[in-house]
Amino acid sequence: MRTEKMVLNQERNVTLTAYLLEVEGEFGYVRRRPAVLVLPGGGYRHCSDREADPVAMPYLQAGYQVFILRYSVKEYAAWPNPLEDYEQAMTLIRENADKWTLFPDKVAVIGFSAGGHLAAAAATMSVNRPNAAILGYAVVSSDVKGCNATAPDTVSQVDKDTCPCFLFATRNDEVVPVMNSIRFMEALAKMGTSFESHIYSHGPHGFSTGDTSIQCRDVAMSCRISDWVPDSIGWLKEVLGDFGENGMTSPAVEGHVTGDWKEFLSIECTFGRIMSNPEGRKVIEEMLETMKKQAEESGQGKVEVTVESMAAFSDMKLKNMLGHVSVPEDMVRAMEDRLSRIPNL
Amino acid sequence: MRTEKMVLNQERNVTLTAYLLEVEGEFGYVRRRPAVLVLPGGGYRHCSDREADPVAMPYLQAGYQVFILRYSVKEYAAWPNPLEDYEQAMTLIRENADKWTLFPDKVAVIGFSAGGHLAAAAATMSVNRPNAAILGYAVVSSDVKGCNATAPDTVSQVDKDTCPCFLFATRNDEVVPVMNSIRFMEALAKMGTSFESHIYSHGPHGFSTGDTSIQCRDVAMSCRISDWVPDSIGWLKEVLGDFGENGMTSPAVEGHVTGDWKEFLSIECTFGRIMSNPEGRKVIEEMLETMKKQAEESGQGKVEVTVESMAAFSDMKLKNMLGHVSVPEDMVRAMEDRLSRIPNL
Amino acid sequence: MRTEKMVLNQERNVTLTAYLLEVEGEFGYVRRRPAVLVLPGGGYRHCSDREADPVAMPYLQAGYQVFILRYSVKEYAAWPNPLEDYEQAMTLIRENADKWTLFPDKVAVIGFSAGGHLAAAAATMSVNRPNAAILGYAVVSSDVKGCNATAPDTVSQVDKDTCPCFLFATRNDEVVPVMNSIRFMEALAKMGTSFESHIYSHGPHGFSTGDTSIQCRDVAMSCRISDWVPDSIGWLKEVLGDFGENGMTSPAVEGHVTGDWKEFLSIECTFGRIMSNPEGRKVIEEMLETMKKQAEESGQGKVEVTVESMAAFSDMKLKNMLGHVSVPEDMVRAMEDRLSRIPNL
Amino acid sequence: MRTEKMVLNQERNVTLTAYLLEVEGEFGYVRRRPAVLVLPGGGYRHCSDREADPVAMPYLQAGYQVFILRYSVKEYAAWPNPLEDYEQAMTLIRENADKWTLFPDKVAVIGFSAGGHLAAAAATMSVNRPNAAILGYAVVSSDVKGCNATAPDTVSQVDKDTCPCFLFATRNDEVVPVMNSIRFMEALAKMGTSFESHIYSHGPHGFSTGDTSIQCRDVAMSCRISDWVPDSIGWLKEVLGDFGENGMTSPAVEGHVTGDWKEFLSIECTFGRIMSNPEGRKVIEEMLETMKKQAEESGQGKVEVTVESMAAFSDMKLKNMLGHVSVPEDMVRAMEDRLSRIPNL
Repeated sequence: MRTEKMVLNQERNVTLTAYLLEVEGEFGYVRRRPAVLVLPGGGYRHCSDREADPVAMPYLQAGYQVFILRYSVKEYAAWPNPLEDYEQAMTLIRENADKWTLFPDKVAVIGFSAGGHLAAAAATMSVNRPNAAILGYAVVSSDVKGCNATAPDTVSQVDKDTCPCFLFATRNDEVVPVMNSIRFMEALAKMGTSFESHIYSHGPHGFSTGDTSIQCRDVAMSCRISDWVPDSIGWLKEVLGDFGENGMTSPAVEGHVTGDWKEFLSIECTFGRIMSNPEGRKVIEEMLETMKKQAEESGQGKVEVTVESMAAFSDMKLKNMLGHVSVPEDMVRAMEDRLSRIPNL
Repeated sequence: MRTEKMVLNQERNVTLTAYLLEVEGEFGYVRRRPAVLVLPGGGYRHCSDREADPVAMPYLQAGYQVFILRYSVKEYAAWPNPLEDYEQAMTLIRENADKWTLFPDKVAVIGFSAGGHLAAAAATMSVNRPNAAILGYAVVSSDVKGCNATAPDTVSQVDKDTCPCFLFATRNDEVVPVMNSIRFMEALAKMGTSFESHIYSHGPHGFSTGDTSIQCRDVAMSCRISDWVPDSIGWLKEVLGDFGENGMTSPAVEGHVTGDWKEFLSIECTFGRIMSNPEGRKVIEEMLETMKKQAEESGQGKVEVTVESMAAFSDMKLKNMLGHVSVPEDMVRAMEDRLSRIPNL
Repeated sequence: MRTEKMVLNQERNVTLTAYLLEVEGEFGYVRRRPAVLVLPGGGYRHCSDREADPVAMPYLQAGYQVFILRYSVKEYAAWPNPLEDYEQAMTLIRENADKWTLFPDKVAVIGFSAGGHLAAAAATMSVNRPNAAILGYAVVSSDVKGCNATAPDTVSQVDKDTCPCFLFATRNDEVVPVMNSIRFMEALAKMGTSFESHIYSHGPHGFSTGDTSIQCRDVAMSCRISDWVPDSIGWLKEVLGDFGENGMTSPAVEGHVTGDWKEFLSIECTFGRIMSNPEGRKVIEEMLETMKKQAEESGQGKVEVTVESMAAFSDMKLKNMLGHVSVPEDMVRAMEDRLSRIPNL
Repeated sequence: MRTEKMVLNQERNVTLTAYLLEVEGEFGYVRRRPAVLVLPGGGYRHCSDREADPVAMPYLQAGYQVFILRYSVKEYAAWPNPLEDYEQAMTLIRENADKWTLFPDKVAVIGFSAGGHLAAAAATMSVNRPNAAILGYAVVSSDVKGCNATAPDTVSQVDKDTCPCFLFATRNDEVVPVMNSIRFMEALAKMGTSFESHIYSHGPHGFSTGDTSIQCRDVAMSCRISDWVPDSIGWLKEVLGDFGENGMTSPAVEGHVTGDWKEFLSIECTFGRIMSNPEGRKVIEEMLETMKKQAEESGQGKVEVTVESMAAFSDMKLKNMLGHVSVPEDMVRAMEDRLSRIPNL
């Protein structure tokens, strides 16, 4: 492993530290690596070492290139300085993808507390969006103004380009109320964005990885707290893919949980979405008509499925619904073909 | 282990199955056991076996007495029938605490999907409240009306007597939208109630324990899903206490995360709560006054802590705040004494 | 789940308790289940309840039919009574495979301490061999005579029909010295038998599952001890296969780690084994000869691989060795064909 | 974290890479750290990068200072060159304990395959013994001569100064037969040395941490394999102590499992050991005599415990035995006092 430390902004004391793993050679099939950009917390007053190196290690072990951004704090913390620092760092990381042997479209951001605010801002407001975001006891709501008066609420900024998110926090955090994480989940859910979240029963603010060399073992704390580390790695493998003999495997989890946020309709859209589109509705109604006819002709008796009976499952993907009512494959393909030409507005 | 099956309501086909473990003898220090009441799901159309026995097993292994309630479904599902069934079961369990060697004040309820709705109703609306509730991909909002038109929304029913809750679900559940769990967390947070929650990135509705003998291994599913089983047991130990040589140990997690819901003020209340109470505010202001004086007299210089500087931490327990600013112990005790006589309205 | 209790031997007070799970219906693709036969410990003086029901639960959760044998103890403990009890139980289980919806060729045995001795005897000396054996802090050597003078050493009985074994124990067990497990592993290794083993740093004899309701939490004990429970289930899935949509999946681990114990040679045999067989050696020498010729003819230059250079890897399967030196597939198939006709003596 | 790379031997290309974590400041109570010295494998032909950095990361995350020794290989591999390299590295690490803020008496060594041989040699033959040793699929027997003709068997070198060991391997390793680990465990057991060991059912040689970026996920491998990483950290905390607010906590596991290897007798010795010492035997016989008398005088009836009845538990610590038969505390203290003056030969 080699280390590089770059000064991004001399005046504001902004630095980017890179921990770079080798590729190929003894790492054979590994030619590039996904990457993680770490944003330590510290209430925009400092960048905590507790949430820097110790956080880098598990991702390095998992084979990720890791970068730590020490962004503008104290007198330089005024918005949008920290976000500009992020943009600069992310641009640099992606521009140097070849040199640093990383996948420019597989760069996750992880932030804690105020750093979690910055990570959430990156996920919702930046130009250079990350490909996944991990938010640790992050102050994502306007609560952030308690430590940085100029920093914006990010919950209201969640948009359809927001990447999949992984949130963790403790229920009884006295510094960043748990409502921050709840509000963010709600915004993601409304936007159809993929996420995972773990709210642990109890533990202090700022536990970092929860390792005993960081968070004193005498403090009351759920023993499940440290699970977020391997869990977040398992989740990154789902969202960015895993190392395979021929490059990274396909992600198991997409950015949105349904096709409802794509440009054109598809059988990955929810039944409700398709039915709310007049042309989409026509495709489904005709399908039901055809099924009825075929059933009658073949003497199978009546088809009981109606638009009304399906309405109870308006959140289900059409694909899964068609599977449940055993629509023949050629009919599914015909519908997919027609839907793919209907703009999803 | 012995099994008892009791008919609670012949007409509505309501039964309670008890799996009862031995105590004492070779289980020496175990004289009574905590208990779990399982409420299987099934859309109020049936009670699924997938969420009955397989769910009982891990709690039996952990040393709990386990009961499975098969409540009113189909034509008998009209509200409040299922809740009445629950009340009857919980009453029976507690009345037979001696015979069944269980702690009547350590009975948790666990429900899945529609059974999760019933568990949430038990936690928020019942007369015989459970001591903890585990809600698995539970339909707790008015979404429940999709499967049982007469069943009530439970989110709006969360009250100060609601027990600690453990929630789990998958982000892409197509049958019970994840918003159900989010709304319930929000209601619990507002009420100061303890909880833990795990929203996994993806998995089908109805995965039960996630074991391969229940949920087909070919279905796309986060591999973290099964963690809810040991995690819920770890959480129950925090909320109900763990087996110790001299009875159950003290719980590590209380019903509310602060003292704000108690009858009288205390240093367990948040700073914000105490300051919003005129008499409470007086106690704090006088404390600051005394500290200033003492500091001046002892020549230590000015005390910088003011009501205003503390206001940023309005969610912090007074106890922890006093610890951070090193208030002497006798002063803490004096404050505790005065606060304990101020009604918390 | 239904429970059956059968008396196997009235006089000796031998009973078999069956915990039987449902199949099909809501368990759809599950038509039969693998099974586990539990042999509690107790120094052949009694059958401990601590190692009966609590052990049954995790296997029931994993979808196994579970049987608990309370075998001959005290005045009836003289050998071969306990082994006869085992034979009777295993015969009954397999004869009732249809009725109890289990796979007769997927029945594992699990024993603890003296029950682990009986499980080891079952695995090495019985007529009705189990398909897998889990040995918990088992007294498998002649140390058993300390509690049952007539009971035999089982280490010396390990034979080529011994099933795969999973062993666990603690290093500082003061009742059954760890050397018992080491000697058994050694015997299995010599016989080429598959096994897994976990020796934990410290913990008392008789911890069972290590759950706090069985083993007092105040006793010094490695916190990894309880891992044997899920680990043994993961291992059983490798050895017996896992639940799949179309019956159980193929085992990932075979009874022997190489083909050296099969009736005829194959490329699954170790290089050493094949070379020690005159006819087998000829197959390999001719293969090398052919490779040399082909290489010379094709102008690829010399083939450097010789019988001597391969000798350093006498424990490697020929299959893997051929893969490393890139032997063409048709040549591999030709060798496999010839080897399959050479008796392995 | 800062990195230092030191050349230990220019000619033989021996280097020591140090990954050094900060202390104090934000790491408050952490003033020094335990350390791990990594010895990569590679058949004494090279030092594999697969077993260098990826292995360092989890220990860095756990708060350890980590050193990687690239020792003498190829033409320089002749014994005792590699062991000399180790001695030099360990001396340097301990001499710089202040500068590198580590505990000189809490330095573990971890080695893989041939590096595991070197780690075993360090644990058994070196002048500068490590405080704990982790041996991964290590070639510890004379099998090592297959890759380094001059390297010694280490099994026969296990002595009473050998530190606690943690071993892991796979049952079907075709390069380093599992018998290596078994023989080493046996030698440790005979010497009374503490150890933990995990033999996984199957997996290839050289899997390192088992992470997908190192060991291709398409290779057949027990999914428990990666557990050795957190398990070894848990074990190190038992053997070296854990981070506490006031320095490291006391170890839960001592170097020897009983007092039998100490200079003088104690109640931590096994009953067998004490009885085999004429003076020790006298202490026990007199104790029994006294107990009998006291029982008779107090009218409690006969004391049934005899030297003969206790003989069955010759592996039990006297301390535990006295606890079981309820010997009064003052008598225990008197015995402890007398035993402590009897040399243990």
